[in-house]
Amino acid sequence: MLEELKEIVYEANMELPKRGLITYTWGNVSGFDKESGYFVIKPSGIDYDSMMPEDMVVMNLNGEKVEGKYKPSSDTPTHIELYKKYPDIGGIVHTHSSFATSWAQAGRDIPLYGTTHADYFYGEIPCVRSLTHDEINNEYEKNTGLAIIETLGKKGMNPLYTPGILCTNHGAFTWGKEPLEAVHNSVVLEEVAKMAYYTESINSNVKPAPKDIANKHFFRKHGENAYYGQN
Amino acid sequence: MLEELKEIVYEANMELPKRGLITYTWGNVSGFDKESGYFVIKPSGIDYDSMMPEDMVVMNLNGEKVEGKYKPSSDTPTHIELYKKYPDIGGIVHTHSSFATSWAQAGRDIPLYGTTHADYFYGEIPCVRSLTHDEINNEYEKNTGLAIIETLGKKGMNPLYTPGILCTNHGAFTWGKEPLEAVHNSVVLEEVAKMAYYTESINSNVKPAPKDIANKHFFRKHGENAYYGQN
Amino acid sequence: MLEELKEIVYEANMELPKRGLITYTWGNVSGFDKESGYFVIKPSGIDYDSMMPEDMVVMNLNGEKVEGKYKPSSDTPTHIELYKKYPDIGGIVHTHSSFATSWAQAGRDIPLYGTTHADYFYGEIPCVRSLTHDEINNEYEKNTGLAIIETLGKKGMNPLYTPGILCTNHGAFTWGKEPLEAVHNSVVLEEVAKMAYYTESINSNVKPAPKDIANKHFFRKHGENAYYGQN
Amino acid sequence: MLEELKEIVYEANMELPKRGLITYTWGNVSGFDKESGYFVIKPSGIDYDSMMPEDMVVMNLNGEKVEGKYKPSSDTPTHIELYKKYPDIGGIVHTHSSFATSWAQAGRDIPLYGTTHADYFYGEIPCVRSLTHDEINNEYEKNTGLAIIETLGKKGMNPLYTPGILCTNHGAFTWGKEPLEAVHNSVVLEEVAKMAYYTESINSNVKPAPKDIANKHFFRKHGENAYYGQN
Repeated sequence: MLEELKEIVYEANMELPKRGLITYTWGNVSGFDKESGYFVIKPSGIDYDSMMPEDMVVMNLNGEKVEGKYKPSSDTPTHIELYKKYPDIGGIVHTHSSFATSWAQAGRDIPLYGTTHADYFYGEIPCVRSLTHDEINNEYEKNTGLAIIETLGKKGMNPLYTPGILCTNHGAFTWGKEPLEAVHNSVVLEEVAKMAYYTESINSNVKPAPKDIANKHFFRKHGENAYYGQN
Repeated sequence: MLEELKEIVYEANMELPKRGLITYTWGNVSGFDKESGYFVIKPSGIDYDSMMPEDMVVMNLNGEKVEGKYKPSSDTPTHIELYKKYPDIGGIVHTHSSFATSWAQAGRDIPLYGTTHADYFYGEIPCVRSLTHDEINNEYEKNTGLAIIETLGKKGMNPLYTPGILCTNHGAFTWGKEPLEAVHNSVVLEEVAKMAYYTESINSNVKPAPKDIANKHFFRKHGENAYYGQN
Repeated sequence: MLEELKEIVYEANMELPKRGLITYTWGNVSGFDKESGYFVIKPSGIDYDSMMPEDMVVMNLNGEKVEGKYKPSSDTPTHIELYKKYPDIGGIVHTHSSFATSWAQAGRDIPLYGTTHADYFYGEIPCVRSLTHDEINNEYEKNTGLAIIETLGKKGMNPLYTPGILCTNHGAFTWGKEPLEAVHNSVVLEEVAKMAYYTESINSNVKPAPKDIANKHFFRKHGENAYYGQN
Repeated sequence: MLEELKEIVYEANMELPKRGLITYTWGNVSGFDKESGYFVIKPSGIDYDSMMPEDMVVMNLNGEKVEGKYKPSSDTPTHIELYKKYPDIGGIVHTHSSFATSWAQAGRDIPLYGTTHADYFYGEIPCVRSLTHDEINNEYEKNTGLAIIETLGKKGMNPLYTPGILCTNHGAFTWGKEPLEAVHNSVVLEEVAKMAYYTESINSNVKPAPKDIANKHFFRKHGENAYYGQN
């Protein structure tokens, strides 16, 4: 079942090592099928070199395995909370990519310093608060998802305008309308995280870019007045 | 028409991912044909993997498409302003390369710290002022070009002696007598931006190199007394 | 003799350049055979390009060569002390990988800043004290091993929960239940060292991650309640 | 003439891009032939992709071309001064490798922070003083060589124990008993420069390694009591 989506999710997972976003098995991609309400996700701890499309696991939003010989990624409950909350999301990625994770470990939002950022993220990329003792020790992965939702909600952020977030002391999640777009956003997040780090090193008094730049560049690529690309 | 220039512009664009200067489609190269007064530029948002020489777009300096099935790069109005102002320029490159963009985001000129810089850029590499609210919201890309020209003018800089510039909160433009030379200058700019960053980290009190070094190295490679290379 | 282990140790050594952990011959891997009490180690100063499985050297724990045409790695006495002290260790790696070595040169423990670290190392990655004049000038490599053991002992660390350490002004040693696991831990150490460096640069007031995170992630992957992977 | 040395010098030059030490044509290697008193050097500004062994230029120590269709590297007078002064040197390399050049631009000696450095360089890697106005404007490349010699002399350094140096605001020179050893020392210098930079970033109060470490590691690999490798 969902053979086409398995192929897509497989290809999206294989982009992670190809793009230098992961070491060993430290990442996962899932894709959601709106018709069935199921999603397809990478199995837990499987080597990318030997992984095949048919190894992808089909799950429902109650966290039950629908099909697959392997256990799903241990981060599956995080994916479930995001799919349940945000029906427009069709793909989710988790990585420990070096610069994004360093901002997450530093516990800081990534300020919007330029147009590379503004082309994809409308405003800062937020860093989720630390989880409490209880949240860590009971249903940790589910609570990770709930804390992401809490952060976007408090900031009044549209998840399609802020297609990624940092989890303190952990790593990054990104998402998109489909799995490869979510991977694309992980690549952007890592590049933006790297340049924000260098930017602050080059000018310790740097201020975020003016709101005009953020508006101009985001809406040059997104929404009904977009004029970038061939559409 | 201009088949040879399309081939050259195509090859120059393909150098950008090969040299690690761009992620996805974040860059563009154009080349100017003095005889016809037309220029050839990369289409907007096209994947480098599938792009072909015949996909290049032919434009005139009024911003009208002369030939091509695709829309030109969204940065086309910036290229136009530079070609109109500087008749000696035959190629222009725009990238978001990591270190150059980080200096741009930091809003700082890159000081001349050594001979690698002095071999190609005669003096600091300037960072253009921020655009105003009106400049951003009306003809943004054209105004980017005008602000570059304003900066070079105020500093009394010869564009062939300063073959590149940083746009605050954005990225870099470089140029040259022909497209591949402009790409070459983008590679140099990125390397120089990286080393200037490290240099300041290693010695926070560092001063720019003496003017003697700048003169010696620039004119060792440029002008009638040059003695580097085989000419 | 021990042909299978030689093959494994050879493959583990070849992972070092492949994973970017070494320059030239600056590293070595060994593997221990519990049945015979012998271990197999890379020869000293041999080029990785021309090295073959049959070039590996078989040694006993008295430091005597049992088989092999080459001299063993000059770090062999360090490996011996670790194998003698820790019977659960089946593989040891030494590298000068860039970020781990920079922490060692800085003489600092690597704080636990996130889950990438916590998935493999239970607590900070310690930096061994400087050796004394006498320790350096008499049986230097043996004393390096003894100082590692002293450090783990003083901190009450289980070597399988802290599968690697930094030697001040020198480089890193990692270990594991078998040689490829020890190499895996070297890759993790280098990535963790890199991200800890960036983390402190991004937030100079950063604090180590809460103990809850360390417990959660380490025991998600290790021990009887582990639930990561397919086992 | 000197066909074998041309082949060696060619191979040594080709190592520079392969090892990531140069961008475009920013480097050169030469090799000295004791019997004839001639040396072989890379031609100036020739593309590495199209260069052939027969393109190497044969020079004498008076700076006269003995054989070759191309002009020699513009840095030839620097090589000449070093060969004239130090008869034990058989190969010289010049690069603008990123980290070494950044230390040179910062105008600082690279302190000995660890054994990676101590295995090859006995003590700090010195940074030559700035050249004077006259030294830059008359026989610049020759004066670069003389200033290197002045620095080694004032510090009482043995060029075979300090096989490389930084030229302020410029780049690095390394040397060795033969050309490939000189390239090897360029690779080491770049790695050591990188780690020294990280080391100071990780611990801003770091002190150089104890002299005992420097002695132990240098003489473990060099001199009559060396015991590293197979000799």
